[in-house]
Amino acid sequence: MDFVQNRRSIRQYTDRDVDDALLNRLLEEAERTQTMGNMQLYSVVVTRSAEMKQRLAPAHFNQPMVTGAPVVLTFCADFHRATEWCRLRKADPGYDNFLSFMNAATDALLYCQTFCTLAEAEGLGLCFLGTTVYQPLAIIEALRLPQLVVPVATITLGWPAEHPAQTDRLPLTAVRHDEVYAPVTPATIERDYAAKEALPENREFVRINGTETLAQIFTDIRYTRRDNEAMSDGLFEALRHQGFLK
Amino acid sequence: MDFVQNRRSIRQYTDRDVDDALLNRLLEEAERTQTMGNMQLYSVVVTRSAEMKQRLAPAHFNQPMVTGAPVVLTFCADFHRATEWCRLRKADPGYDNFLSFMNAATDALLYCQTFCTLAEAEGLGLCFLGTTVYQPLAIIEALRLPQLVVPVATITLGWPAEHPAQTDRLPLTAVRHDEVYAPVTPATIERDYAAKEALPENREFVRINGTETLAQIFTDIRYTRRDNEAMSDGLFEALRHQGFLK
Repeated sequence: MDFVQNRRSIRQYTDRDVDDALLNRLLEEAERTQTMGNMQLYSVVVTRSAEMKQRLAPAHFNQPMVTGAPVVLTFCADFHRATEWCRLRKADPGYDNFLSFMNAATDALLYCQTFCTLAEAEGLGLCFLGTTVYQPLAIIEALRLPQLVVPVATITLGWPAEHPAQTDRLPLTAVRHDEVYAPVTPATIERDYAAKEALPENREFVRINGTETLAQIFTDIRYTRRDNEAMSDGLFEALRHQGFLK
Repeated sequence: MDFVQNRRSIRQYTDRDVDDALLNRLLEEAERTQTMGNMQLYSVVVTRSAEMKQRLAPAHFNQPMVTGAPVVLTFCADFHRATEWCRLRKADPGYDNFLSFMNAATDALLYCQTFCTLAEAEGLGLCFLGTTVYQPLAIIEALRLPQLVVPVATITLGWPAEHPAQTDRLPLTAVRHDEVYAPVTPATIERDYAAKEALPENREFVRINGTETLAQIFTDIRYTRRDNEAMSDGLFEALRHQGFLK
């Protein structure tokens, strides 16, 4: 599993296509992922056409990977298929609620991540777009997602045309807690973040952005309170629109 | 990656412990998973003590794996650590909202699934407990999770003491859509669910439960509207309690 250790997000792809038989095999193998009650509460929309990539791009802030990748995959929390199955089988489904959204989102994200691991094991490169939940209604409209289907993850996929440096990660002490959650203190922050803050690339990042600290890049520029609150409203609106909230 | 194809959830474990060095290695390797803005919005609480397993068990409906496994791992959406980092670095964090919960839950679930794949590659067995989001406040209290930390996944982990039959999966036609979401119709339900419904184990499941259809086991017994709606309220309450909702 060395490829997991060596992974990096890939944003530039060669002209080589991703063979559809390979894509099908990986999507099918990923179906072995655990799933709630074996209901498989997910679906994936495969985008290959230039026209559809253009339609998806604005929802992802026109990040160039969306139109530059041979394949874009949108993973969706999907209680629509299971609900239709119930209706056709004399069963009365009760999945138009928030818990059911979380169950389906969980299924979709686990499935997505198994797919990512399998794809990277094949040598494919991918980039996960966190923007999927930023303007979900735009994606819902573009992909014609029915009731009880909400996009939760997008990846752009192709054969790597770059080999970027690996980004840093926090030491495991930041992530692991034993028996109960250990308090986060100035001392633990120092222990867990000092190395990250001292990295030349992160110091350069601070310089370019003109902030005093690395943390301010996140709070003041990349992920601001104002954007987060506006997009929280948009996400709730999407959940209501798709029938997961009353 | 044959182990992905051969995987099954494992609920019974041998007496052999899961070495802590191995656990650390796998948790650390999984940190390579893509994460939002490289913030790693997750944490994992490791439960080994019998007392803590007993305390967690009721939140998981006393499923026997919780007390029977050598290790229980609770994966949490965690904006607490990042928020404390911001505060200590003169940055004003704005992550007490629903979008930030979804971002952190996504990070935590992707991290969890990479960990699961790595653990299974080592021959470990695990069972994913969907119950984590059913009564999150009980888990929050037991594990002393601070503000902006919400559990989203639990796995029980150990060396397999069983080799159960694999469960069925839907054909890929159920899951994959091309360019836009293809309508679910009586014909597609028949195409995608007929084989599942015809399986001897599923027919037996229907017989034992005394329902007319397999779908009714889900709607009337396992995942009822009443339970889903009550647990949706509990999940919202937990998000408010932990500061992700006003």
